[in-house]
Amino acid sequence: MATISTYEYTIQPQDVDFTLRASVPSIISYMLNVAGRDAHIKGFGVDALQNNSYTWVLSRLAVEVNAQPKQYDDIAVETWVNDFNRLSSTRNFRIRRGDDILAQGVSQWCMINMETRQAADMTLLKDVYERAMVAEPSPIAQPARLRDIEPQQSISRPVVYSDIDFNRHVNTLRYIDLMFDHLPLELIEQGCALRIDLNFIAEARYGETLVLGIENNANAWQFDIASDDGRRLCRAKIVFNE
Amino acid sequence: MATISTYEYTIQPQDVDFTLRASVPSIISYMLNVAGRDAHIKGFGVDALQNNSYTWVLSRLAVEVNAQPKQYDDIAVETWVNDFNRLSSTRNFRIRRGDDILAQGVSQWCMINMETRQAADMTLLKDVYERAMVAEPSPIAQPARLRDIEPQQSISRPVVYSDIDFNRHVNTLRYIDLMFDHLPLELIEQGCALRIDLNFIAEARYGETLVLGIENNANAWQFDIASDDGRRLCRAKIVFNE
Repeated sequence: MATISTYEYTIQPQDVDFTLRASVPSIISYMLNVAGRDAHIKGFGVDALQNNSYTWVLSRLAVEVNAQPKQYDDIAVETWVNDFNRLSSTRNFRIRRGDDILAQGVSQWCMINMETRQAADMTLLKDVYERAMVAEPSPIAQPARLRDIEPQQSISRPVVYSDIDFNRHVNTLRYIDLMFDHLPLELIEQGCALRIDLNFIAEARYGETLVLGIENNANAWQFDIASDDGRRLCRAKIVFNE
Repeated sequence: MATISTYEYTIQPQDVDFTLRASVPSIISYMLNVAGRDAHIKGFGVDALQNNSYTWVLSRLAVEVNAQPKQYDDIAVETWVNDFNRLSSTRNFRIRRGDDILAQGVSQWCMINMETRQAADMTLLKDVYERAMVAEPSPIAQPARLRDIEPQQSISRPVVYSDIDFNRHVNTLRYIDLMFDHLPLELIEQGCALRIDLNFIAEARYGETLVLGIENNANAWQFDIASDDGRRLCRAKIVFNE
């Protein structure tokens, strides 16, 4: 059994929004970067997997933000893996500023074969994974399974160069940016605590167009991103605390 | 007289594009972040100026990229101020990886009054500036003054949350992203050496729509960004080496 790993950062000017607080997308970006860094250190990073034609794919993510750090705040991002089975592994996150818990998250990852894009059996990694497991529960409820929405509004935009990662798929964070770009600015300005659940279903490629559907009921905002050929790519639900 | 300052960085996963090389916009981002960091350390950063209701505005920038660093490459960003007058100050950049010069840049900055948005007389900073001046010429030709283009293609998109900085103006880097997003992907994939000249004319605000005009002649790409009310915001010219 391993222990929780901690990575320290300082919030950079490029992380903050017009309120001079780290944006929620940048908080999620810190979590995902730490996931990559920690997996690399523990010997099951993208680099190690790619030698065997496998890669990690994020399938679900839930994040609860209590408070956003400010520019130049020092934060500590804690992470630990506490579950894995044949098809999925669970990695957790906690962001602290001193003793304050600013945000917590739970992510579920699959391993896929890069050529066939099919899920791979994760028991391949059993030995290395068992050494990395931490006996600490997830800090928040597991990511919800999200269903179809009834969009009140729909927006299209093409996939562009700055959206794509090394395999020419849209980077996960771009979906999150796209959703936050369509929330009312006043809501973001208030900096309310929130929970976001995300389901990643399929990958969009350069040349496709993204179609964003939005449904709003009181303090809940639901999003649905599809490709222009109708393939579902991503669903999300953001609930702001009252 | 001062000496050239050097800041060291490691190219992060979020800096690289699908080729796993740092994108040209992220290379420019390193230069602009170093400008902020160095001005702060020398006592004439945005924070010091804001106490007196002034801020820095980038008016022109030229960057020549010889080669793009790769993910996790260690780079050193050198910067020095070598000229200033009543209206403008010149800051230079050189990015090295070991002995290789990867990119060089020259930037021209104005100081403006945050309330009136009018240019301020920079002789206010004469004493602190004279101590920071370095007797080293600019590494490349000064930024060109760019003229009107005849767009062959025109694209509109609204200003969104992720575009705006602390005063709700579009961040300089978003203009650069927008232009690179409309270059042919094959051109970016080749990773040719290039020079980019940029003129920043006015500031776009949240709520406006950006209109991008594009003119291409052989290896030269010219861009013109205006607001939907017709105000010119930014012009750029990118020339790829043959």
